[in-house]
Amino acid sequence: MQKPAHTQYTIHSLLQNRWSPRAFSKDAVEHDKLQSLLEAARWASSCFNEQPWHFIVATNQHKEEHARMQTCLVDGNSWATLAPVLMITVAKLTFTHNETPNHHAYHDIGLAVGNLVVQATDLGLSVHQMAGIYPDVAKSLYHIPDNYDALTALAIGYVGDPQSLPDELCERELSTRTRRSLSDFVFSGQWGQSSPIIQK
Amino acid sequence: MQKPAHTQYTIHSLLQNRWSPRAFSKDAVEHDKLQSLLEAARWASSCFNEQPWHFIVATNQHKEEHARMQTCLVDGNSWATLAPVLMITVAKLTFTHNETPNHHAYHDIGLAVGNLVVQATDLGLSVHQMAGIYPDVAKSLYHIPDNYDALTALAIGYVGDPQSLPDELCERELSTRTRRSLSDFVFSGQWGQSSPIIQK
Repeated sequence: MQKPAHTQYTIHSLLQNRWSPRAFSKDAVEHDKLQSLLEAARWASSCFNEQPWHFIVATNQHKEEHARMQTCLVDGNSWATLAPVLMITVAKLTFTHNETPNHHAYHDIGLAVGNLVVQATDLGLSVHQMAGIYPDVAKSLYHIPDNYDALTALAIGYVGDPQSLPDELCERELSTRTRRSLSDFVFSGQWGQSSPIIQK
Repeated sequence: MQKPAHTQYTIHSLLQNRWSPRAFSKDAVEHDKLQSLLEAARWASSCFNEQPWHFIVATNQHKEEHARMQTCLVDGNSWATLAPVLMITVAKLTFTHNETPNHHAYHDIGLAVGNLVVQATDLGLSVHQMAGIYPDVAKSLYHIPDNYDALTALAIGYVGDPQSLPDELCERELSTRTRRSLSDFVFSGQWGQSSPIIQK
């Protein structure tokens, strides 16, 4: 199953075909592919080249570890327990060179995960990012230090059959993808003022 | 000039060749390319599909607007005044459906800008992201509402000649790109414990 974005302007196929499924195949993800995903994350840009990103990884080849990580997910994300690979992203909240607060730590995790997702798409994998985690459970379970936040979980694998999902989720899986219009978020000169770059 | 990442594992060329230059050519950026950049940002994923990202855009085809945006940059980023396109990214801090805080707003700006950067790389453009802005100046200048944060600036254009930069910046432009080792930020089972996925 594919679910490409219906774009107004042309974008690269890796961005157009990226999509967050809930139905994953049981097929394991090859280690060399996971290596490429994490390497892609590694080369994101970051404020002061701090690289505040960290990834805790659990694959279903180690069932106990996979089950441990599942306890960090909120009930609404229980579909993700079937994804062969789970990760938890963790942000360091201070700069290493002077231990002052890094206001852009969360932002830079987004950049790193964005890279990971592009690499995954290129390798035929899908990633579903989840904000719905219990950060305190993750911190306690993995002994994450104080000045770090557990931020998101990632479900990673090959896309599966939507019919394998409960009815409500299956319906969401098949529904049309939507986004706000460019004119709603691209401005010039003043807040709310359409940019001449965007045609209405 | 190109400055590809020296990777341990293979990654897609768009990620490998992405790099943040300071020297930009004077050549204007075509409108249709800017449209694709913003369309790419549009299709990022986000928490509850909130799409908290906003972009204020200034091109050097409108010199007055370009000069206004330059006043938002800290002195250390004055090299960016020569980039033909500047943008300021703005995050909405609350969810539109219930106006509660969106803890992932900054993270999701990172995802959107990550998409924009991949698209730019594919079109032969370079992007240099800057945390060094005066957010309050931007908020006041553009009348950005209270529950929004100005987060970063983007310098966008075709890469230029490093020799056009002051000596110190030229040296940085030509220096080797570095990243932490994968084993420093990829863990399994417990914080700080190397993942079996990563070979040391």
